[in-house]
Formats: sequence, structure tokens, C-alpha cells
Amino acid sequence: MKIITKAEIEKILPTLDPIPAIEQGFVEYSQGKCNIPPVGELIMETGDIHIKYGCINKQDFYVIKIASGFFDTGENGPMTSDGMMMVFSQKTGAVLAILHDECLLTDIRTAIAGTISAKYLAPKNVTAIGIVGTGVQARLQAEYLKSVTDCKKIIVWGRSPEKLVEFRNDMRAKGYDVTATMEIEELCNNANLIVTTTPATEPLIMASHVKPGTHITAMGSDTPDKQELDTALLALADIVVADSISQCQLRGEINMALKAGTITNDKVVELGDIIASGVGRTNDQQITIADLTGVAVQDIKIAEAVYLASL
Amino acid sequence: MKIITKAEIEKILPTLDPIPAIEQGFVEYSQGKCNIPPVGELIMETGDIHIKYGCINKQDFYVIKIASGFFDTGENGPMTSDGMMMVFSQKTGAVLAILHDECLLTDIRTAIAGTISAKYLAPKNVTAIGIVGTGVQARLQAEYLKSVTDCKKIIVWGRSPEKLVEFRNDMRAKGYDVTATMEIEELCNNANLIVTTTPATEPLIMASHVKPGTHITAMGSDTPDKQELDTALLALADIVVADSISQCQLRGEINMALKAGTITNDKVVELGDIIASGVGRTNDQQITIADLTGVAVQDIKIAEAVYLASL
Repeated sequence: MKIITKAEIEKILPTLDPIPAIEQGFVEYSQGKCNIPPVGELIMETGDIHIKYGCINKQDFYVIKIASGFFDTGENGPMTSDGMMMVFSQKTGAVLAILHDECLLTDIRTAIAGTISAKYLAPKNVTAIGIVGTGVQARLQAEYLKSVTDCKKIIVWGRSPEKLVEFRNDMRAKGYDVTATMEIEELCNNANLIVTTTPATEPLIMASHVKPGTHITAMGSDTPDKQELDTALLALADIVVADSISQCQLRGEINMALKAGTITNDKVVELGDIIASGVGRTNDQQITIADLTGVAVQDIKIAEAVYLASL
Repeated sequence: MKIITKAEIEKILPTLDPIPAIEQGFVEYSQGKCNIPPVGELIMETGDIHIKYGCINKQDFYVIKIASGFFDTGENGPMTSDGMMMVFSQKTGAVLAILHDECLLTDIRTAIAGTISAKYLAPKNVTAIGIVGTGVQARLQAEYLKSVTDCKKIIVWGRSPEKLVEFRNDMRAKGYDVTATMEIEELCNNANLIVTTTPATEPLIMASHVKPGTHITAMGSDTPDKQELDTALLALADIVVADSISQCQLRGEINMALKAGTITNDKVVELGDIIASGVGRTNDQQITIADLTGVAVQDIKIAEAVYLASL
């Protein structure tokens, strides 16, 4: 049993490209080749943990991820997260490695799902990347888009002026041309590849804000109550993609639009089917939306990739 | 994050007495102080894994146990098991230790539940210990009874003469006076403290076999289909104890007797309530039965005890 620390994972990550593996995972997921039981939960007064696990049938490994979020009034500040991914042999059951990533790999695999969505759905000519939100995912989503577009122009929206300035400074230091705005309309007018990364529970982007030829990846809403997009926007969209149709029927933007009756189930396409067909956006005027709620196959694939690279 | 190997656990175990902690755990379980979600399962062609987890509310730790059983056609023989228990802080969520016990602690905590049952239910004067089965638990259950009785006389029943001889030789080497039999009636005539440890799916011990003044701990049947005791024997018994009433209604001997209609729910008492009241067997003529299906609180308590002893 090998222990791989976060510091070691940070050294391994630049040496590998997990994007093809995660694309393959989405395809296998949509083809029904994955065995992914319901998420386990332990809810305590001080915090809660989630256990996500599963495998792709007849492959080498299975993976168990344990992630915790705790409200700590002590020196660690208001909230602490911890997490690990465990890689086991599907042949013998033996534990091969514990990747004590402290949630880093979850952040990365989430950003990569955004990259993959943009690869198939973003317009050819990206005028600016619109980032809604200023947190960890806001930064990672922007950075991971480098494999899909050369565009270095970011327009970022946030509610907090302090966090907007911080985001702008950080991303400028990484070579991006960043404009900060507190008007979502300004972001929608200027960007045609938009990623929403907030925990909002009321729509931020309305149907009237969005120009033809825009792609939006909505990755902030991952529960039945969170919402970043107007349900009318999903009706307006030419293509609506779910990372997991069954999961998006219960949580995220698609769940909201289905409940509101603005779309029906037959409008929704699964990301793995888009990847397998190679056909996403078909012209520059389409409005496309990818609703990402996070699927365990992403955890399986990134854990495998890091484990194999560590050998 | 500390890793404690099986070899280290084997060194720690003789230095601690986890029985009081596990007794306390059963009491807390029966008092509704435990938070134990449903067991997680991943069933693969090559084997399967079970994830048991939970905590006692407002205490220091929570525990996650991962156990696997795999059919391996390779050099490891027909079946390989692996397992680990992870101890986390209930205050911060951080992982404190991984006890890579390879299922040893599950075996020990299971044996200890038998010890605790015997402590409250066995007759004062044990004439002989009857062990039904010849495997790992058959040995451990016998050995762990040393804290409850000075009786060193064992009568063991099994289907395989080879395994009976092996058990007899092994336990004689440990100082026991062992008789082997292939007749269950002979075991029931001679022993008044009986432990059944087989994966039988048809009753082995019938109501007619059992003398007044006998205690039986039935720990082999832990699924809806396994059965070691005649359902009429549960009707005959003066006291029927479940480690977990809710679980025993769905699996094990009590489940069988309820389905057969030989007993009703109001006959069943929970082990933690027996421990809390201190009142088990009240005279030497009673027939008592403890049905043990295994409860996550046992895992929590033994993992905590080993972790604390490792500090």
C-alpha cells in the first residue's frame, strides 16, 4: 500500500495529461460500462463526509473517494476540507495506493470536465472567456481552458469587489488579460465561452442576457436547490448537455428547467455520447449549455492516472 | 495520517482490553446515540467490497471500514480478503490513522461480541464450551471466552474430519481439553455454552437437542438466507437477544423465526439494553440465545481503541 501525498501529487500532475482518460471515462459512463453505487453520506454536527466509489467493469482498478467538509471554529478558519482517493486492484481487491490529495484531484477533475465540455461545444473563435465567480474553480476552469483555446482574455463577474480584485491580480500574474465586472450583462455581452462556478440558489444569467454563438458550462449547481441559469435559457439553448442525465434530472440546472417545465427530458444529451460521436456544436450561432454535477467516473480516471504515473 | 500495519496491530492487541469499550458501544447503540448509515456495496465480477461507517454522536472520532472478498484464481488461493479501518477526527474531519488490519479487527470484534453475550447470558457453571464450526471464528470465539469462564473443555462439531482434527490439535496446543464430534446432539448434550460459527443455510441445532440451562451465541448467520438454529428453538428460548434489533429483523436467526412465525418482535431484547441493565440470565434453567449479525459500532470501538493505544 503506497501513500501519495498532496505534495507528491502536485509534482506528478504537470507530467501527465488526464484529459483523454477522463473523456474516455465519460464515454464508458454513457455506454453503461460503469458500476457506480449511490454516494454514501455521514452527516455530523461538526461537518459531513461523502463517499463516492465505483469502477469501470472489467478494468484494472476500483476507486473509493472520501471527502469531508467540516466547520471548524479553531485555528483552521471557518471551513476545512480533507479528502483522499484510494486505488484498489479489481483483480485481487488489494489496496494499491492512497492518494491523500486533500481534495486537489476533485478540483482538477472538475475543471477538466469544463475543458472537455468547451472542446466539443465552444465556438471556434472565442472572443473572451467569461468566468462567473472568483473562487478556486473560477481560477482552475479558466486555466484548464488553455488546451481548448488560445484566448487569454477573461471577463470575471463576482459579488465581492475584494475577491474580484484578488482574482484579477492572480490571473494577470498568470498572463491573462482580465477585466472585472459586477454586471452580469457586461460579461454576457463580451464573452462567448462562459463558465459559471458559484453556489447561487437564484439564477444569475437570464435568457435575455445571452447572445447567439455562446457556450455556457454551468458547474456551480450540484444540488437540487442550487441554480445559476434562468430555466428559460435552457429552453432557448440549441444543445443542452448533462455530464450524467440521471443525476442532472435530480440536481443542477437541468433539474430546475425540468421542474419548471421549460424543457423535457428528450432535449438533454449526455456528454459521453457527444464525445463518442465527436459531434457537439455544429454552427457558430448556436447557444449551447453543459450542466456539470460531477460523476464518480471522473474520480476513478484521475486517481488511476495519478497512480499509474507514480509507478 | 498514520499507517498502522497488521503486524503493528498484532503487537498492540495484547496490551489492551477492548471488551469494555465494545460493551459501551452496544449500550450507546441501543440508546440511539450512534449515527450509522446503510452499508455501501460494490459488487464486481471478481469480488465485492463493503463499506461500513459511522460514529457515536458528539464523540472524538468517526470510522470508515472497507472490507473486500475476492475470488482469486492466482497464487493467493481461492479467496482473498483485505480490509482496513480508517479513524478520522469528528472535530476537524481530518484522517488520523489508517489501520490496515486485513480484516483482523473485524474477526476480533466479532469474537468479543460473543464474549459479551456469554458474560450476561451463559450459565454460572460452564460444563463445556460447544463450538459449532472449525474456522477462524470457531477458534477466536473459544479463546475470547477465557475472560468469562475458566472452563477449558471444548467439544467441537464440524462436517470435515480433517478440519476437526486440525481444530483439535490447534486448540490442544493452546491448553484446551478438546473433544471432536460429528454428532450435533453429542455437542448439545455435553456443552451448556454453545457458539455457532458456520455459514449454514439449514438449521444445525434443533429445539429437541437443547437442554435447559444452555446459552447459545449464533454468530454464523449474518444474511437473510443463512440459518444455524431451528426456528422452534427461538420459540423455546426464555431470552432472545439481538445485537441490533433492526438488523436481526432482516438477517440471521431472528429474521428466520419471525418469518416462520415462531416468535414475535416483542420477544427480542437488544444486547445494549441487557448490558445497560446488567440483567441477562436470571436462573440456571433458562435457555438463552444471542443472535449476532455484526454492528458498525463494534468496528468504531475497536478501531478507536487500537488507534488510542498506538499514540
